[in-house]
Amino acid sequence: MHDYATKGTTDMTADTIATSTQIQLAARPVGWPKASDFRTVTVELGALQPGQVRVKNEFMSVDPYMRGRMNDVKSYVAPYELDATMLGGAVGRVIESASDDVPVGALVVHAFGWRDVVQEDAAGFRVVEEIPGLASSVYLGMLGMTGLTAYVGLTEIAKLKQGDTVFVSGAAGAVGTAVGQIARLKGARRVIGSAGSAEKVALLTSKYGYDAALNYKDGPVREQLASLATEGIDVFFDNVGGDHLEAALNSFNDGGRAALCGAISAYNTTEPVAGPRNMSNLVTRGLTMKGFTVGNYAEHAPAFYAEMGPWLQNGEVVFDETVVDGIDHAVDAFLGLMRGENVGKMLVRI
Amino acid sequence: MHDYATKGTTDMTADTIATSTQIQLAARPVGWPKASDFRTVTVELGALQPGQVRVKNEFMSVDPYMRGRMNDVKSYVAPYELDATMLGGAVGRVIESASDDVPVGALVVHAFGWRDVVQEDAAGFRVVEEIPGLASSVYLGMLGMTGLTAYVGLTEIAKLKQGDTVFVSGAAGAVGTAVGQIARLKGARRVIGSAGSAEKVALLTSKYGYDAALNYKDGPVREQLASLATEGIDVFFDNVGGDHLEAALNSFNDGGRAALCGAISAYNTTEPVAGPRNMSNLVTRGLTMKGFTVGNYAEHAPAFYAEMGPWLQNGEVVFDETVVDGIDHAVDAFLGLMRGENVGKMLVRI
Repeated sequence: MHDYATKGTTDMTADTIATSTQIQLAARPVGWPKASDFRTVTVELGALQPGQVRVKNEFMSVDPYMRGRMNDVKSYVAPYELDATMLGGAVGRVIESASDDVPVGALVVHAFGWRDVVQEDAAGFRVVEEIPGLASSVYLGMLGMTGLTAYVGLTEIAKLKQGDTVFVSGAAGAVGTAVGQIARLKGARRVIGSAGSAEKVALLTSKYGYDAALNYKDGPVREQLASLATEGIDVFFDNVGGDHLEAALNSFNDGGRAALCGAISAYNTTEPVAGPRNMSNLVTRGLTMKGFTVGNYAEHAPAFYAEMGPWLQNGEVVFDETVVDGIDHAVDAFLGLMRGENVGKMLVRI
Repeated sequence: MHDYATKGTTDMTADTIATSTQIQLAARPVGWPKASDFRTVTVELGALQPGQVRVKNEFMSVDPYMRGRMNDVKSYVAPYELDATMLGGAVGRVIESASDDVPVGALVVHAFGWRDVVQEDAAGFRVVEEIPGLASSVYLGMLGMTGLTAYVGLTEIAKLKQGDTVFVSGAAGAVGTAVGQIARLKGARRVIGSAGSAEKVALLTSKYGYDAALNYKDGPVREQLASLATEGIDVFFDNVGGDHLEAALNSFNDGGRAALCGAISAYNTTEPVAGPRNMSNLVTRGLTMKGFTVGNYAEHAPAFYAEMGPWLQNGEVVFDETVVDGIDHAVDAFLGLMRGENVGKMLVRI
């Protein structure tokens, strides 16, 4: 884990950057991805066409949902194409522009990750402000898709109410560290998190506003949660699935609500994973489980920015980043994320 | 299966009815209930106290949810007490009254089932109108909790929209036969049902408005549903759970909604039942699963009566009843219900 606090700058000229190093999907992973499933290529960038910009990326994001895109199955985002450069969130600086809307020097957020330099139509880039004291990477994390995922999941999907007890799986990850703090700021009575190491568990309660935390490697989640949530839980924010979901169903109070954001426990399995053995609690306790992906809730972004911006400026929301250097190590960063080696947002610094 | 079309009448006087025959829970069933788990007792009724009424029941309801009440576990309704008379929906005639609100001769709906005669405070009884051409049993079925369950589940829980494709498990049961017809009347594009015999499957399409039906004993539900719902399903109304839920999760379109009403497949098992192996579809397809029990949605009863009354009068909604005669056979009726021997509402005629 690195605490990253400097801001990337661009002092290279467009003349010196005429190529782009990119990571392609060479084979669809079976189970855990391996290095040979990916390929690094360097391509020549042609002359800028009218309306295009050339952007030197500062950071790219690796996210759990990308594992799903490596499979060729129906999902909310199209699968990655084989032998094509993968896509993902990134933030960079415009180094050449043939567009009035996106000038040279602008900081831009976009979806053309997994490469060091990108050249595309200006419409694909969103110009953002520099934020004093924060690196541009914040737009991939707490002030980006990650933070919005936590915000939408709690407020729109799980319908968090003042006084709720909230349980969060994957609590030390990028989304989980956001969920704990937003839940507290929105009036949760008690916030309980699960993570996979003693270091992470300690961070949850010392830094991220969790009242209690458990290490899922220490024993059955069901029993650990029941002992920490003696009055039951009202909201479950799930990034993990599997035994965490079963534990939540066991501890839910009547009318409980689960926001299902991901199921990292199942992403790299090759056999179907059995669902929770206590699904009948959905009926008897009147529970709601709702899966979501943030892309379908973009209309909540303005409300999110309006709240999260001040929280970050005031220090009411803090965050960690785990930064891996170099596009050549992007796959390592992704695999580390899958193994849970990150605290907070996992990033590649280009 | 009986088609029941006559109306019970009361010509006995209060003087002749001074006792009540009642069914008590003698032991909590383990797995499938057996006769020895129940006990029939006859008790003397004391003199009517001020405010009380004495009611001779005409019909009592047996419902799947009662199996849950026989267990001593946290649920939305209190467990049945051991060595006490069980409760349940019933409809009867007032034969003696010490209340101005509930006069002798009134037809009343109440929750004091599992007995032939009940004497309680008048506040426990709801006076209802006679409906020309319909037996009083309709208040336990299509115009009672059963119909309301179907109505609330489709409209409030599953948020049925015009043009939706709807899948219903336990489709030939009391709730299922209501769901199919209400879905059609509310603008569903296609309604698909599952039942457990060829006779039931035929009834679904010939009488209950289903466009297609499958017999879950004929092969994997998942494959049968996929072949009947080639364009996917939008709504699932579940009375069964287990493989039906997994099949629905497999066939859901993006944004699909499941109303979980019951899970009769698991009610008499002694081992925990594994959940669906495709829970991850909740996230990738943005699905919602919501369990419910109709008791928490009583505020929708007026809207339900306003729609269902005319539907019944106009013949737009039809129904079957499976009637077992005699309080002494109430347990047989309940066990038959658990085995799926009914079409439509299972009732005991007192």
